[in-house]
Amino acid sequence: MSDDSSAQKTWGGRFRGKASNLMTRINASITFDKRLWRQDIEASKAHATMLRDQGIVGAEDADAILKGLEVIAEEFERDGVPERLELEDIHMTVEHRLTELIGPAAGRLHTARSRNDQVAIDFRMWVRSACDDAISNVRDLQRTLVELADKHAETVMPGFTHLQVAQPVTLGHHLLAYYEMLRRDLSRFKDARDRMNESPLGSAALAGTGFPLDREGTAKALGFDRPTANSLDSVSDRDFALDYLSAAAQCSLHLSRLAEELIIWASPQFGFLELADEFSTGSSIMPQKRNPDAAELVRGHSGRIMGCLTSLMVTMKGLPLAYSKDMQDDKEPVFEAADLLTISLQALGGMVETCEFVTERMRAATEQGFSTATDLADWLVREAGVPFREAHHITGAAVKLAEDRGCGLDQLPLEALKNIDPRIDERVFDVLSVDASVRSRTSYGGTAPDRVREQVAKAKADLGL
Amino acid sequence: MSDDSSAQKTWGGRFRGKASNLMTRINASITFDKRLWRQDIEASKAHATMLRDQGIVGAEDADAILKGLEVIAEEFERDGVPERLELEDIHMTVEHRLTELIGPAAGRLHTARSRNDQVAIDFRMWVRSACDDAISNVRDLQRTLVELADKHAETVMPGFTHLQVAQPVTLGHHLLAYYEMLRRDLSRFKDARDRMNESPLGSAALAGTGFPLDREGTAKALGFDRPTANSLDSVSDRDFALDYLSAAAQCSLHLSRLAEELIIWASPQFGFLELADEFSTGSSIMPQKRNPDAAELVRGHSGRIMGCLTSLMVTMKGLPLAYSKDMQDDKEPVFEAADLLTISLQALGGMVETCEFVTERMRAATEQGFSTATDLADWLVREAGVPFREAHHITGAAVKLAEDRGCGLDQLPLEALKNIDPRIDERVFDVLSVDASVRSRTSYGGTAPDRVREQVAKAKADLGL
Amino acid sequence: MSDDSSAQKTWGGRFRGKASNLMTRINASITFDKRLWRQDIEASKAHATMLRDQGIVGAEDADAILKGLEVIAEEFERDGVPERLELEDIHMTVEHRLTELIGPAAGRLHTARSRNDQVAIDFRMWVRSACDDAISNVRDLQRTLVELADKHAETVMPGFTHLQVAQPVTLGHHLLAYYEMLRRDLSRFKDARDRMNESPLGSAALAGTGFPLDREGTAKALGFDRPTANSLDSVSDRDFALDYLSAAAQCSLHLSRLAEELIIWASPQFGFLELADEFSTGSSIMPQKRNPDAAELVRGHSGRIMGCLTSLMVTMKGLPLAYSKDMQDDKEPVFEAADLLTISLQALGGMVETCEFVTERMRAATEQGFSTATDLADWLVREAGVPFREAHHITGAAVKLAEDRGCGLDQLPLEALKNIDPRIDERVFDVLSVDASVRSRTSYGGTAPDRVREQVAKAKADLGL
Amino acid sequence: MSDDSSAQKTWGGRFRGKASNLMTRINASITFDKRLWRQDIEASKAHATMLRDQGIVGAEDADAILKGLEVIAEEFERDGVPERLELEDIHMTVEHRLTELIGPAAGRLHTARSRNDQVAIDFRMWVRSACDDAISNVRDLQRTLVELADKHAETVMPGFTHLQVAQPVTLGHHLLAYYEMLRRDLSRFKDARDRMNESPLGSAALAGTGFPLDREGTAKALGFDRPTANSLDSVSDRDFALDYLSAAAQCSLHLSRLAEELIIWASPQFGFLELADEFSTGSSIMPQKRNPDAAELVRGHSGRIMGCLTSLMVTMKGLPLAYSKDMQDDKEPVFEAADLLTISLQALGGMVETCEFVTERMRAATEQGFSTATDLADWLVREAGVPFREAHHITGAAVKLAEDRGCGLDQLPLEALKNIDPRIDERVFDVLSVDASVRSRTSYGGTAPDRVREQVAKAKADLGL
Repeated sequence: MSDDSSAQKTWGGRFRGKASNLMTRINASITFDKRLWRQDIEASKAHATMLRDQGIVGAEDADAILKGLEVIAEEFERDGVPERLELEDIHMTVEHRLTELIGPAAGRLHTARSRNDQVAIDFRMWVRSACDDAISNVRDLQRTLVELADKHAETVMPGFTHLQVAQPVTLGHHLLAYYEMLRRDLSRFKDARDRMNESPLGSAALAGTGFPLDREGTAKALGFDRPTANSLDSVSDRDFALDYLSAAAQCSLHLSRLAEELIIWASPQFGFLELADEFSTGSSIMPQKRNPDAAELVRGHSGRIMGCLTSLMVTMKGLPLAYSKDMQDDKEPVFEAADLLTISLQALGGMVETCEFVTERMRAATEQGFSTATDLADWLVREAGVPFREAHHITGAAVKLAEDRGCGLDQLPLEALKNIDPRIDERVFDVLSVDASVRSRTSYGGTAPDRVREQVAKAKADLGL
Repeated sequence: MSDDSSAQKTWGGRFRGKASNLMTRINASITFDKRLWRQDIEASKAHATMLRDQGIVGAEDADAILKGLEVIAEEFERDGVPERLELEDIHMTVEHRLTELIGPAAGRLHTARSRNDQVAIDFRMWVRSACDDAISNVRDLQRTLVELADKHAETVMPGFTHLQVAQPVTLGHHLLAYYEMLRRDLSRFKDARDRMNESPLGSAALAGTGFPLDREGTAKALGFDRPTANSLDSVSDRDFALDYLSAAAQCSLHLSRLAEELIIWASPQFGFLELADEFSTGSSIMPQKRNPDAAELVRGHSGRIMGCLTSLMVTMKGLPLAYSKDMQDDKEPVFEAADLLTISLQALGGMVETCEFVTERMRAATEQGFSTATDLADWLVREAGVPFREAHHITGAAVKLAEDRGCGLDQLPLEALKNIDPRIDERVFDVLSVDASVRSRTSYGGTAPDRVREQVAKAKADLGL
Repeated sequence: MSDDSSAQKTWGGRFRGKASNLMTRINASITFDKRLWRQDIEASKAHATMLRDQGIVGAEDADAILKGLEVIAEEFERDGVPERLELEDIHMTVEHRLTELIGPAAGRLHTARSRNDQVAIDFRMWVRSACDDAISNVRDLQRTLVELADKHAETVMPGFTHLQVAQPVTLGHHLLAYYEMLRRDLSRFKDARDRMNESPLGSAALAGTGFPLDREGTAKALGFDRPTANSLDSVSDRDFALDYLSAAAQCSLHLSRLAEELIIWASPQFGFLELADEFSTGSSIMPQKRNPDAAELVRGHSGRIMGCLTSLMVTMKGLPLAYSKDMQDDKEPVFEAADLLTISLQALGGMVETCEFVTERMRAATEQGFSTATDLADWLVREAGVPFREAHHITGAAVKLAEDRGCGLDQLPLEALKNIDPRIDERVFDVLSVDASVRSRTSYGGTAPDRVREQVAKAKADLGL
Repeated sequence: MSDDSSAQKTWGGRFRGKASNLMTRINASITFDKRLWRQDIEASKAHATMLRDQGIVGAEDADAILKGLEVIAEEFERDGVPERLELEDIHMTVEHRLTELIGPAAGRLHTARSRNDQVAIDFRMWVRSACDDAISNVRDLQRTLVELADKHAETVMPGFTHLQVAQPVTLGHHLLAYYEMLRRDLSRFKDARDRMNESPLGSAALAGTGFPLDREGTAKALGFDRPTANSLDSVSDRDFALDYLSAAAQCSLHLSRLAEELIIWASPQFGFLELADEFSTGSSIMPQKRNPDAAELVRGHSGRIMGCLTSLMVTMKGLPLAYSKDMQDDKEPVFEAADLLTISLQALGGMVETCEFVTERMRAATEQGFSTATDLADWLVREAGVPFREAHHITGAAVKLAEDRGCGLDQLPLEALKNIDPRIDERVFDVLSVDASVRSRTSYGGTAPDRVREQVAKAKADLGL
């Protein structure tokens, strides 16, 4: 039947045998690369238009092709992409349907093109758009963080190192630390996007082609800055996917840190925040639980995104030029990472936005932990001219005394402090409260509320808020 | 509506708000954990039977549950598992359907059980069966290799180091090297299976339970060697999945090495083998190609399986006890790795079985590469009592001479050899042919055909051939 | 000078040029493989003895070799191994020194041997001994855990899921969870050791040899179970190193979980433990800090050990047979992982042994968190015949009420409970205390003190305590 | 002794016990962070100068500090950095020596600073300089490639896909593909350098400080673009190290591909190149070998650099703010990766520069492989108006015929071709030679010699050649 014969393997002309069922299964990529259908059709339209404009394909055939591609786009949009393993991939699936729709003229679409440059451009366009999505989702999370930071510019909380209370900071300052990480993530996705924005279309199988192509033209038509400069590299290269995965892995690493903090803060022992009902779950057996599942999933997803990066790096390692079929394993790790990153950014944003910070618990924790010890040491340096290292030892003695007495540093009597070092006088109590401590840290980028508001203002300007 | 209310969140009793759509999406696992449906129903049947036998649930209710579970099994077998995100996972999907079928008695199935031990046993059973599949597929590939090794016990080919011709070996010997790797893989999968074969069922949420369970009984009923010894560990542990992934990663690493060799051997420059039509593909643009796609995919899959192992290791790192939701990210990497490993083992088996080794090219390559140089050195040691290091230098001079003359070592005139070292006599020519070389290497595990046949016989006995 | 010429490159006979300085540097492994010196000398002694006993090398030369090797061992023990890059590796360093000591007879040691099988046996012996060390260090940590578990078999603490208080458990039970993880780690190191315990010596370069070796003999002499069965595999195989790294990665993963818990427990908000001075550090600027640095380093080291595993897996992927120089990159990741694992096991043992558990804080945390909610649900099932799912909803209402009133479940008046469900009666208070809860969980492997003691007894027997 | 007491632990003021030996060993970083000594001293000098200029430390003390630091720099340059574990790290080692040299005034250097921002700036400066090194080494390799590409702009070789001969390309074109990969690597290192070039100095422990610092000033003095904007982020962030490692991993991946090709090309079966003596090695047992060890080590190093990236990503995942000791594990993977990358870039450059391409073997391989089949298909499209798909099938038949006859496509008689398709005429022979094929591929980025020269010219301009 002509139907069947048009579905025959494109490369089947010379083979006597039949691909075994195993071969068909390991070889087919349509089950996952169908996600590229929009890019495949868009790139084919640009290619067909160019072939017509350069006089390589007659106008009539080219227009039939263009019209046919639009019909296919409508069909796929409406009914989804059919998964016929014997058609192997999205490229053959589209071309096969085009042949059904317009007949042998469909065969002219593949002029001066190969699946090697075709998949390179389709996938590159997909990854480029994943960069755009990441940029947009990162900015949304930044907006949430900045608005909360503004609100909590003066909210005192313990600054931790080693999960031990170190010095008082403000919650606003803490949230802005994540703003900064995300700012670097943004620049990473932008750098990746810039670097990948060269069009491989027209590289053909690997060597370029003798047809009088307008590569500059198709590049512009598809939103690329320029065509790639080496056809062999164009079909061998998956840097764009690795750049995306590297940026995604680092971004998810940042999210995992925020997630870890939310989980710890939500524990009853910390009690620094209460999760909203819509972003927590209960237990099938322990009805009292209010579990930070979304944060845990974000933390877990970070491990998986790192796994995706590992996958593709390892797969690409040591491949000789140009195209090898190993490279077909590029798509699933990227699709997986992109899905995981998107939901992670959005869910974490939702959690942070809807949770309630229990500011009185934060303050109480700050006041319990001798968190102003450094302020005492700094006071000794500043007001009594003690070398820092000596001031540090004096402060150690004061903390030990307060610990033994079960009180805070600011509750020690002056006499007791003078016993430790006679240079201490009553002015020291001005720096021993957590509010005084926070207010005093006015170095650029420091936790003083004015400094926090300064950074909030900058961030809002950057975000167009 | 009663329909709706039975679909309500199990843990919803206390929440006022509504889980956001984002939360539902990030939280739901039914889209992938539905693959556990057989294990879920089987474990539930064992649990229900035990609850009945221990008098914890009445016989009538228990029997209704058992019957209901069988109906569900039939439904899922026939129609697939429905994906309702609001039911979250396979456990709630089954229980929800059971409630529809038998009413409130369904609620007794979850007595003395939690989703924590439920998913632990379901997934463990799935992984155990993945081990069994791996063992079976590895043995199939071993059989193919051993039969080919038998056939090619005398086929001479170059043994390479650094991809340079080193010494003559036999193809049979070379294939048996992979038999050995797979033998270790087998033992890895068996060790993993033994280690994981303890039943966590009855550990409940994390602390065990006060109901008079028979954990020994459910363990035996489900094919486990014994119940696990610590309920906290039982619900926190994913070692079984990591053991599987580690074994799979190493196995796929071995496959990647064989794949690399097939790809190189199939290149026209080597020409050591010709791929069968059914295990090679052509090109959409280069009709003369006969591409080893399956081998390349096997090599690529190895990178992805390593990525899967990385994923789960990273995800599990640093998790406090007991269950954390990060652990929901355990399944997809395992499912992916198992699918990739299965198809890799089978496809590589198919390729090897159907390809044709071009033995005359192998022999010619062996004869060109001065591959018997070591035999000359060994001869000097053995017959002329020259210390090995000196023999090595003499041989270097002989190779240099042959290279300059563009001939083989065995084509150098005796006179020329004597000029290099007078201790050389005409008996040396007995060892300079590739056949003599191969025959001479009779140390245990060596490449001499008799030694190869000895190992083939052992392997056949092990494989029941 | 004869001195210089004996230091000349072994393989230099044929080359006209001189290896560039770059080549010398990238090629040399002596800077790290000198760690194999004991194994190299031991294996050489076994080889020389066998060569003598088989009549391959004369007794006089062989004895000179053996004596020379002993002298070298003494020198290296006393003065360290010299790092001369031009001697490349430990094998040539030893042979070069042997030549200095005993003259040309040294050149007979390399008879029927190659650096390929030499490094394979040296490194295998090193890794085997790293397995033994790991086994010994794991058992030490197990002993510490079991003794603490014994002491704390009745100490109540919150069992967490999602870092939320779930159900009461005992500290002894919690510590035994780690005992179980380590038990699996032990079996992994043992399996690895068994699998690797085959001697590659006598495989020569790749093809075996024609000399009448006694491979069985050298295998036994060096503590191996048997010789390897395929010479090509023997020199291409690094499974033994990967097996070790896989086991190490999983073991360190377990340690990272314990470390995470110690860090969280040591935070002032949890306050579940106080670190000993000798296992905590202070801050250069915040004198009040008592930082769990050792636990953090153990957690960090786990990431690095995973990186070591990744390194070697990726390096080995896709290598054709037999030896390729990429395999020289096998040692550093293994050395690094072994060092990190050793210090991690020991330091964590020290921390756990010397820290003080603040049991009153643990109990208080257990009593605050509605941790006996499941006990209420279970009581409803057991005593009032309520289906579990319904019991779960009733319990949810009770928890909500207690939360609103700011009291514990066991402090709710009976009347209030009866309002929620009339089937509740005064007997319910028997199960609502944390001690009652813990005592009741008597299922095998459960947290009831008797069950914990049962597992402690088993563990002590296994450990010979 | 006063000597000893000055070596006492900085943080020891409060501790009664003594850090155990284990703790000292796991905690100390001086064995590796001594590599930061130049950066540590440089940053301390900038800090001391600023403290003086801002009036925080008196001029006399500050000048003594500055002079002392210079003395230490000379000492370290001359004698190396002493490794005293009890001094923990490079920071305390420097400060301890400074105290010996100038007395208590040394204690003023740590004013308004913490080891947290100190290590952050030291390491950042080290990594920045590693970026500069990478950029310089990458450019060197690019220069080598471009000059070879210029020389071989017309040298015909087979373009491979799937390691099967696909289409003729030029060696110049092939080498330029690597130029392009390295061009992206350059931009990655530059982006990383730009992103990291913010100074964390002055962030103090985590919260900033109350001393009137000039962070802008120290930033400029140390070559940074600006100070960081958030003190918490500054001490928690290791993005700069991850950015470097990501770039290094991708760069090494590219090198591994080139290395793989060199290894394959150097095999006697390919024989496309002959390695220079100074970049190849021989065998201890097989004197005829000429092994591409350097290329294999470059390929292996790529696996290890990926392992380094994995290490640090995993280590950083899920760390709560601000500093945790896990972060001490940041340095060794970066040091290792930087060393491996440097030697890889240089050694590969040396290999490529010194090897000899055997151009006649390349041409012969091109002519054997039906590599102009696509040219035939394209001719049919262009000259006979055949749709591409149909042309593809016709070409398949022609290849099959040539294969059966054992001849090249251009050796088939016209009659035979006409039998396959009557539209073929004698003009077809103009496109069937490999030179004609290469010349014809004039699309932008294609393999036509003119196109190659165009890219060479561009590259030379970029490189300042």
